[in-house]
Parts: sequence; C-alpha cells; structure tokens
Amino acid sequence: MSATKSSNIHWHGANVTQSERESILGQKGAVIWLTGLSASGKSTIARRAEQLLLERGVATYVLDGDNIRFGLNKDLGFAPADRTENIRRIGEVGKLFADACVITLTAFISPYRADRDKVRELMPAGSFFEVYVHAPIEVCEARDPKGLYKKARAGQIPEFTGISAPYEEPAAAELVLRTGDIDVDGCAMALVNHLVEKGFIPAASV
Amino acid sequence: MSATKSSNIHWHGANVTQSERESILGQKGAVIWLTGLSASGKSTIARRAEQLLLERGVATYVLDGDNIRFGLNKDLGFAPADRTENIRRIGEVGKLFADACVITLTAFISPYRADRDKVRELMPAGSFFEVYVHAPIEVCEARDPKGLYKKARAGQIPEFTGISAPYEEPAAAELVLRTGDIDVDGCAMALVNHLVEKGFIPAASV
Repeated sequence: MSATKSSNIHWHGANVTQSERESILGQKGAVIWLTGLSASGKSTIARRAEQLLLERGVATYVLDGDNIRFGLNKDLGFAPADRTENIRRIGEVGKLFADACVITLTAFISPYRADRDKVRELMPAGSFFEVYVHAPIEVCEARDPKGLYKKARAGQIPEFTGISAPYEEPAAAELVLRTGDIDVDGCAMALVNHLVEKGFIPAASV
Repeated sequence: MSATKSSNIHWHGANVTQSERESILGQKGAVIWLTGLSASGKSTIARRAEQLLLERGVATYVLDGDNIRFGLNKDLGFAPADRTENIRRIGEVGKLFADACVITLTAFISPYRADRDKVRELMPAGSFFEVYVHAPIEVCEARDPKGLYKKARAGQIPEFTGISAPYEEPAAAELVLRTGDIDVDGCAMALVNHLVEKGFIPAASV
C-alpha cells in the first residue's frame, strides 16, 4: 500500500466524547480534594473511601504524598513557591484523571486557599469537591503518627502548618468531616454517599 | 465520641493491593509509549486505540500535547532541558495512571532515547511498551497536517525534530508500526492485540 493511499483511508479517527466515555464506564470523573492539618485524617479517609469505591466496582485512585512527592514532584521543596507549584501539578493531574472518568481522591495539607481555588477553577464546573478534614490541632498533635508535631515544636521542622506556618480554612467546602467526632468509616461513607447523590457513581446494587 | 476513642476505632484502614485492584477492574495498567516524528501518526493511532479499548469496556486514557502542554507542562518550553522535564513528568503521570490500572497511551515525539529509557525504568517491569510509530520523513512531510514541516524548512521553527534537531530511533521497541504501509485501524488493532497477548486486558467476548 502506498503512503499516499494509506494517508487517504481513515487516517483521522474521531475522538471519543466525554458522555460516551462516561456511559461506557458507568461513572463520571471527579476530584475529591481533602484538605486539612497534618494527622487530621486525610490519607486514611481517602484510602478507606478508595476501598469502598472499588468494592462497588468504581474506578478510583488516591493521589497523596507517597505517590507524588517521590515521583512527579520530587524536584519541589516546601518553600511557598514550591508548595504552590506542588498543588498546581496535583490539580492538573487530578484534572486528567477526572477526564478519564476516574474518581480521584487527593490527600494533601494544601494550606493556602488561593492554591485550592486555582484547582477548582481548572476543573469542569461541579466536578471538584473540596472536603475539609477537620480536627482541632490538639487532637492532631495527640495523634502525631509520624512524630512531626513533636519535631515541629522542637523547632526541627521550619514552616510546619498549624505550628509555624498558616493553615487557611476553606471558606465554602462542599463537605466538612470532623474526624474528632466521626470515625474513618463514617467519613469515607459520607464521601461515597456524596458522589452517589451528585450522580457521579451509581447507587450500590442491593 | 471523644477524640481519643475515635482514634482507637478503625482509624487505620489497610490499603487495596494491586492484585485486588486488577481483579476488581478486570485489567492491568500499562503505558503504551508512542514515539516518532511529527505527523508519523502517534496521536491518531492513540485516539483510535482508545476508541477500540473503550468499545471493549476497557478504562483507557490518552496523554498527548493537547492535554499536557496546555496544562501540567505549560511552564515548559522546547529547549533540551525542558524537553527532558516534559518527558519526565509525562512518564510520572503515566506511572500513576498505570498504577490505577488504566491503559495509558502517550503520544509525544519524545526524540531522546535516554528520556524514554528513564520512563521505562520508572515503571514496573513489563508494563511499559515502547512503540515506534515510523514513517519516512518524506511521508511525514507530505502529510504535514499542521504545516509545521513547511515552517521548519523556512527556518521559522528552531530545533524541529527530523529537520534541525535529532530523532533517536528506539533500539528495542516492543512494537514498530509502519504508518506508510499500514492504515490507522491496523495500527490501533496491533496495540490492542498486543495488550491481550500480554494479559493486560481480556480477549474480546465473541
């Protein structure tokens, strides 16, 4: 077959539309953006929600420090400009995952309101859910699973959110999960129910 | 419920294992890395393969210039260091998608062998497929859908791959698709069949 001929026959396929993709996969993409202090429970809630979603056959993925800070963002530090670029890239990756119809949970302190708002603006309207994972700092500090608060109090970690760097609370989060009052299953179920209510995933078959 | 109590009851969920995720979703994640000259057919093949995969119910996603250069990598230019960082980030994102069990197709010229090899090294063994989308440069230049070769010949685009910048051919690509000889459906089907043969997606039900 000549090159000229091959360039005539079906050499430009139409793209899949987003509604075709959603229909085939049986779900719509979204970014569930968990924000809150260190040890407030973000990653634990995200991992539990991931389990619940997969048990329903929903394609889902968690972006957190473990898979981002040592990979995509390993060139970034913790100065304000780097923190902003960190969140920007995570937002862009979340947008790609949501475009692929994956329910995407992100678990980052993301202390600056402006950074979170920029991610919201990136996303198609209604597909970004800001979730404030809230616990009083005394509760987080008492948990301190990695000993970070202890180090921060000892001055060994500069610019530690809640101690020596600000955390800007969400002004209008879609959900607030108070992890001092509700256990991890309750928080994770609240996320799943929210996705069902908003029509992103089907209700569980009985 | 007191904070102390809530931190005792199931506040650390086990993570989903990769084999559990694969079993639930019925597919394994992979990165199909299409490399080749401008207008060799990378994006067209990727989009057609995406259609074929979705028709089978397979979760898949294409990363290409349209969704990367104006988003995640909008801060990068075309100097060698920026090209390398461009490919590094795409590789890291592809790794995340594959970890989510999505069949991930990437369509970038990616002219440097070292950059492509670094992506291969990032990925779990056997889940990276380098696909050389090959057409003689005369064929690509005759297609020239965006008029880029014309501009490059006129000296209006510096460092244009194949004209004024090198393209380093793959030394050991998993597949070579000769788009001067095979049409887009044939190329896309070759990718799908390769995924079936390697056990990443089920054979089509008859």
